[in-house]
Amino acid sequence: MQNYQPLKQYLADKRMLVEQALEQYLPQADTFPPLIHESMRYSVFAGGKRLRPVMVLMAAELCGKDNNSVAFAAAAVEMVHTYSLIHDDLPAMDNDDLRRGMPTNHKKFGEDTAILAGDALLTLAFQTMVDPQHCASWSPAAMLRATYELGSAAGSLGMLGGQVMDMQAERRQISPSELEYIHRHKTAKMIMASLRIGAILADANQAQLAALTTYGEKVGLAFQIVDDILDLEGTTEELGKNIKRDLKKQKSTYPSLYGISESKAMANNLINDAKISLQIFGEQARYFVQLADYIIARTH
Amino acid sequence: MQNYQPLKQYLADKRMLVEQALEQYLPQADTFPPLIHESMRYSVFAGGKRLRPVMVLMAAELCGKDNNSVAFAAAAVEMVHTYSLIHDDLPAMDNDDLRRGMPTNHKKFGEDTAILAGDALLTLAFQTMVDPQHCASWSPAAMLRATYELGSAAGSLGMLGGQVMDMQAERRQISPSELEYIHRHKTAKMIMASLRIGAILADANQAQLAALTTYGEKVGLAFQIVDDILDLEGTTEELGKNIKRDLKKQKSTYPSLYGISESKAMANNLINDAKISLQIFGEQARYFVQLADYIIARTH
Repeated sequence: MQNYQPLKQYLADKRMLVEQALEQYLPQADTFPPLIHESMRYSVFAGGKRLRPVMVLMAAELCGKDNNSVAFAAAAVEMVHTYSLIHDDLPAMDNDDLRRGMPTNHKKFGEDTAILAGDALLTLAFQTMVDPQHCASWSPAAMLRATYELGSAAGSLGMLGGQVMDMQAERRQISPSELEYIHRHKTAKMIMASLRIGAILADANQAQLAALTTYGEKVGLAFQIVDDILDLEGTTEELGKNIKRDLKKQKSTYPSLYGISESKAMANNLINDAKISLQIFGEQARYFVQLADYIIARTH
Repeated sequence: MQNYQPLKQYLADKRMLVEQALEQYLPQADTFPPLIHESMRYSVFAGGKRLRPVMVLMAAELCGKDNNSVAFAAAAVEMVHTYSLIHDDLPAMDNDDLRRGMPTNHKKFGEDTAILAGDALLTLAFQTMVDPQHCASWSPAAMLRATYELGSAAGSLGMLGGQVMDMQAERRQISPSELEYIHRHKTAKMIMASLRIGAILADANQAQLAALTTYGEKVGLAFQIVDDILDLEGTTEELGKNIKRDLKKQKSTYPSLYGISESKAMANNLINDAKISLQIFGEQARYFVQLADYIIARTH
């Protein structure tokens, strides 16, 4: 049994920077009009894992830049993630009542406000990415490239494309390649982008960028397979959301297509590939390696 | 009676550039996954006035830049406008069936696809704004500033703030200052931003930027007052959307607060202020002046 304590401490430190940056870039709850700002903050501060923004910080650090100055991009990535959850949970989409152990945004604020709060978080994410005040630390050209990366990962050829396919995949048997498309786009694209954004801002070279891209792709896919397994094997208390949702929605998942033990083997292989991809960084990438193992080991 | 023929030809030429740019930046309808791309294109190419993107081109031209190279920003502004219409029309929001004489996006594609298509247009707008290929024509720093402008105008302190207040204003009497807040934020902010984006990319000086900002503010507010009047006085055939929607929703409007003739006087005053604000540009601003008059004169 691996000792994850140092990793957990490392991630907790990074997460604190993410929380500070989110606090800095999100308007206060009483900012006019308060309803939308309360709603935005409710979902952002509902206590997620902050996996994606932490990866922005980790990638920048691995490529030689300090954490503080890249925190704005980490906050932006988390805003995009939160908006996607708010819209995914809507009655017209997944129609979920519970998220991170709390009522979903539309349950708390109503459907209209939830739609607008999601829109506002997506907008604020891009606004934060291009804020000219960051030109003091970063080249405008790198900021443009990093923002373009965020747009292409989150858009209709990325995360939203996966979301549309996922929506169309309910209540019917889908092929393994369709399922891989969905997981790759719904989840892996934004994880890859998080790593690439950190690396691009830190002026990574092509080999570094390619290595982190492969790592993100493999870990992102493994992460989603583990999510499918947890939906079957976990409990509502552990996960903070309703379980067996995929079954109820007759959604195809890795376990439903391949069985649980084959799904676990596939996730393990992906994690191994992910770890190998970072060999060029040597010992510096140790937390990335441990994080990959931890993703497989997690129960929530 | 003013002869609007030269203005109409001028606007038609600009609109053609906008159409070409939208065609260039929107994925083809058969791009995978086709459902979301068909849905995005359906609303973008439903034939709007293109007022906002034309203003991007006009402002850049007034400040000395040619139209073609700024067309990407015009396309981005129109994508933001279209996304806002798709989400406004949703059942949880205004619940409208008809837009520009056609079924609204959710009527045609379903609510889930309409939400995602709106999200995708908003995302693509920002992606288009920061596309590094435009660095050949524009300075990265100006691109960042222009994109920041788009974000702040469209976000929770801009258009979305107006949208939230509008939503909360239904079925109750609101104060004149609340109504002005809504119109200023829902409509004027994006019109101001369109002009400012064109000007910023064209490296306008402070006086030029301030003049165009005032013009946009006055014209934007007048435009919305005229919209309120048309909702009462126009016909469904002329407007391509259902009329007397405000009455049905018991929404406060300029005519309901001030009466029709006082509302028309207010719009006229704003249009005069708008025209005066552009005096520093002299004869070069003639199409802006005519456009201001035309906004008052329009019936649809």
